Amino acid sequence: MAKKTKTNKRQTIIEEAAKLFKDRGFGGTSMRDLGAQVGMEAASMYNHINSKDEILEHICFHVSNTYISQLAQIEQTEASYVDKIKALVRLHIHLMIEDGAAVSVANNDWKYLTGDKLTQFKDARKRYERGFAALIEQGIAAGELQPVNVSVALFTILSAVRWVELWYRPGRGISGEELEQNIMTILLNGLAKGQQQPIEVRELVLPSDHS
Amino acid sequence: MAKKTKTNKRQTIIEEAAKLFKDRGFGGTSMRDLGAQVGMEAASMYNHINSKDEILEHICFHVSNTYISQLAQIEQTEASYVDKIKALVRLHIHLMIEDGAAVSVANNDWKYLTGDKLTQFKDARKRYERGFAALIEQGIAAGELQPVNVSVALFTILSAVRWVELWYRPGRGISGEELEQNIMTILLNGLAKGQQQPIEVRELVLPSDHS
Repeated sequence: MAKKTKTNKRQTIIEEAAKLFKDRGFGGTSMRDLGAQVGMEAASMYNHINSKDEILEHICFHVSNTYISQLAQIEQTEASYVDKIKALVRLHIHLMIEDGAAVSVANNDWKYLTGDKLTQFKDARKRYERGFAALIEQGIAAGELQPVNVSVALFTILSAVRWVELWYRPGRGISGEELEQNIMTILLNGLAKGQQQPIEVRELVLPSDHS
Repeated sequence: MAKKTKTNKRQTIIEEAAKLFKDRGFGGTSMRDLGAQVGMEAASMYNHINSKDEILEHICFHVSNTYISQLAQIEQTEASYVDKIKALVRLHIHLMIEDGAAVSVANNDWKYLTGDKLTQFKDARKRYERGFAALIEQGIAAGELQPVNVSVALFTILSAVRWVELWYRPGRGISGEELEQNIMTILLNGLAKGQQQPIEVRELVLPSDHS
């Protein structure tokens, strides 16, 4: 029971730290700020965590491990490539809705990791991106996806969902499920309605083009 | 002729400032740094510009004015809503390729604008977003676009193109034109090939869902 309470306290410290890091940045948050936030003296916080660096590591690797383990699960399913990519898009949006502060810290403050931890985090991110890119590549080869440049598709998708963490909160007039569905529709099926056109270069001539 | 040289010097100072602001942030760049970059004493730079703030204002409003004037032109064309939105997407990508440092500063350092200039910039951005959103809304009403939430579509598109400024440079194995075409294909027609499905909720069951 004492063990459990200790774990909960640690978890609370980490969650509150994620919110502070998100709002003020890792560099702009002191252990004193964090103590004030969780209502503990700095000295007793050290019963639960060793350092601010340890908290940052915990947050960053919690996020990267989630992505990597979900990717591994998705890779093993029998679903189509389209559905595998939809599942990854859903994962990104879901994690931002459920755990936005941690995702924000992992996206923006990972650069304050040091030594081996920094290397490991960058390796994890690269491994995830390569795995995601491989699904896109295989989907193109299987004729399920448009023959676009794989890096362009990967970064367009990863970038397209990042605003969610800044914008989404309950009361925006859209549920998390609708949000996921809308974004997946745009990225996978396209904002334009009707049958898809083959890729072609079309120029819209603007008035200024004549000047 | 003297006037022209002076204008060119001013332009050079602003262009080099944009690169420094992008790399080091507005706060991290001094007039001394800028002088060293353009090879001028701070005193003679003040013949061409009044302050670091003035440079920031110039960069931010150059970018926002470009967006707003292009939007106004696009609104007046007879093109379909799909083609109007494609033209806006192309504009974003084009501006990032051609003028990446300025776009980056307008995206990240606008918050260092002060007083009226800050208000004007935020108003300009809001006006642009509203105009873009109105095209999406009209496109949905006209039956050209999928019936998604307008804010979700707007922010997904604006966010989806932002990585370009960080990633794209000649030698990435893709031309600017191909990049534009690929991103427009994903956002307007979808990454998935074949006929579009109506919007529906599909869940991919993961192994962990059974645990």
